[in-house]
Amino acid sequence: MKIDGTPYRSIWVDEADRWSVRIIDQTKLPWAVDLVRITSMEAMAHAIKAMLVRGAPLIGASAAYGVALALRADPSDTSLRAALDVLAATRPTAINLRWALNRMRAKLAALPAAERVAAAYAEAALLCDEDVAVNEAIGRHGVELIKARAVGNRRVNVLTHCNAGWLATVDWGTALAPIYMAHDAGIDVHVWVEETRPRNQGASLTAWELGKHGVKHTVIADNAGGHYMQHGQVDLVIVGTDRVTRTGDVCNKIGTYLKALSARDNGVPFYVALPSSTIDWTIRDGVSEIPIEERAAAEVSTITGRALDGSIATVRVVPTSSPVANPAFDVTPARLVSGLITERGLVDANETALTEMFGDLA
Amino acid sequence: MKIDGTPYRSIWVDEADRWSVRIIDQTKLPWAVDLVRITSMEAMAHAIKAMLVRGAPLIGASAAYGVALALRADPSDTSLRAALDVLAATRPTAINLRWALNRMRAKLAALPAAERVAAAYAEAALLCDEDVAVNEAIGRHGVELIKARAVGNRRVNVLTHCNAGWLATVDWGTALAPIYMAHDAGIDVHVWVEETRPRNQGASLTAWELGKHGVKHTVIADNAGGHYMQHGQVDLVIVGTDRVTRTGDVCNKIGTYLKALSARDNGVPFYVALPSSTIDWTIRDGVSEIPIEERAAAEVSTITGRALDGSIATVRVVPTSSPVANPAFDVTPARLVSGLITERGLVDANETALTEMFGDLA
Repeated sequence: MKIDGTPYRSIWVDEADRWSVRIIDQTKLPWAVDLVRITSMEAMAHAIKAMLVRGAPLIGASAAYGVALALRADPSDTSLRAALDVLAATRPTAINLRWALNRMRAKLAALPAAERVAAAYAEAALLCDEDVAVNEAIGRHGVELIKARAVGNRRVNVLTHCNAGWLATVDWGTALAPIYMAHDAGIDVHVWVEETRPRNQGASLTAWELGKHGVKHTVIADNAGGHYMQHGQVDLVIVGTDRVTRTGDVCNKIGTYLKALSARDNGVPFYVALPSSTIDWTIRDGVSEIPIEERAAAEVSTITGRALDGSIATVRVVPTSSPVANPAFDVTPARLVSGLITERGLVDANETALTEMFGDLA
Repeated sequence: MKIDGTPYRSIWVDEADRWSVRIIDQTKLPWAVDLVRITSMEAMAHAIKAMLVRGAPLIGASAAYGVALALRADPSDTSLRAALDVLAATRPTAINLRWALNRMRAKLAALPAAERVAAAYAEAALLCDEDVAVNEAIGRHGVELIKARAVGNRRVNVLTHCNAGWLATVDWGTALAPIYMAHDAGIDVHVWVEETRPRNQGASLTAWELGKHGVKHTVIADNAGGHYMQHGQVDLVIVGTDRVTRTGDVCNKIGTYLKALSARDNGVPFYVALPSSTIDWTIRDGVSEIPIEERAAAEVSTITGRALDGSIATVRVVPTSSPVANPAFDVTPARLVSGLITERGLVDANETALTEMFGDLA
């Protein structure tokens, strides 16, 4: 999508040297667009861990390029194995990370060392192009849900949580792809953007990318989503996901479950947009089986933003003596999900429907 | 309750001059305990509006002293009427404000001007003492719910939202009164403190007052409450309220409704602690009839805290071009409420039970 009129992806090979990898440092948004140059596997692992890049699909793409960078430094079996291990350990919840690394391993392990670097860059590039195509397909299927509610050109209000936009993928986004397509088609779409504490990806990323594309939106506290649903001001909810079980349970940013409950209580459809690579066919029970990342207390006890003088500053908002807990994800049971928007179309969130649509993957 | 060993109330008449009113500026907590001296009705109205004092019962007590200050300056009918009007307009949602002002009017309107000042101070003091007694009674009834879950000295985990502690009342608190009593009785009680965006009363007030009293607690993002309930780590929820309808609908800080939904979904009891003065007998449907205060966008788009150098600083966390909405309360339908903890005991959240217990008020 575009930043000030210029089209961008969230990750690409540097145009000048044609081997280092460029990413947008998402910890600096919305206050600065810093195109960081990543030159080693270790730097990429750090970028994933410290969330310079985040979002399940983008984590997968970044890890793929991390493997390419590792092999460029050393194309041996040992180097490949180490890269796969280090990158896999960066984040525990997003299944796309494992999926992308498995794909790289399958492509590269059997190749002679001399052929690995070129093959790794080619595979990472292919994975990125496929991600863009998949998200565009998600957008095409999802936009029908918005169109169906835009009768008589009335405004359609979509609520989203966290950032599942183009910044979370290589381009288009998952949850936001249908919204961009609706906007581009002239539909009067307005997005309730939940700030998404503690890291505020909604306020700092979703609001920013929607604003840059000209999509109407309003930032609200995470606490306010239920209130707007009670008052008929939300037509549908669309969120992304970090992992979906074969039974349709949805793991996504902490707080998603609460909005699914509220949507159900108010008859608001609750949709989840995802590439099929987000489905974990090995597990059935999301609440008991998906590992939930516990992140640093400082993400809750301190907040970084722009001070009045324009500098970036961090303030503490919790008494120093108070303990803090910070689970990063929660699980929305399949029974609360109206449907999954995938690259192959809309599918019910249950095992029968999922295995029918994705029998070749399950 | 105590601050560093010294017992405090949240509002009192200055010990030296015996007419000005002292409050704790709650906008400065947890970083400074600033005992502000209020010397006029206008200053008290500002303190309520700008939330130096907040919490439904404390707003009522502050307004009562606001009337006393107005009459001290001018005991005429015009002055009394103006004070009641100005103070009533400070906050729209908390019913205790109206209740306290009606009580002051009833006491003072018929008196000769010369007797009004002394009567106003006496009535405000009585109202404060009654608030303390009422909250203590709420604590005595509510602590039984915690005791019942402390079998074999196991830890009891209580989740609360916003601040309904002693800082929200004159002393004891509503939702926190049972917790203080459980703690003082040696029960192993632990409180999940939701930070309560956008104003963070949980992180800055509830965590602070629990910490000062030595009660175990953990601060979490508002988004995390449902996750802990899903994983069996919440034994009960206790919150306060700004207004309860005669049918038992509960208006409280924005986000409360989401926790009530999550409690219901996980079989966690959801209790609301309140003095009977919080019941609005004139309305039946909370969602359609209770006015919800829309507060300033800056409460969402900026956050104030303590910078690394110890200074208090404000940072912006929403892109400057993004619109923001900020509803301050939501309504939890009575069907989601396990019970109301009042000064007269536990009561079901429905009209029959409420009118039976409070037939003299309804």
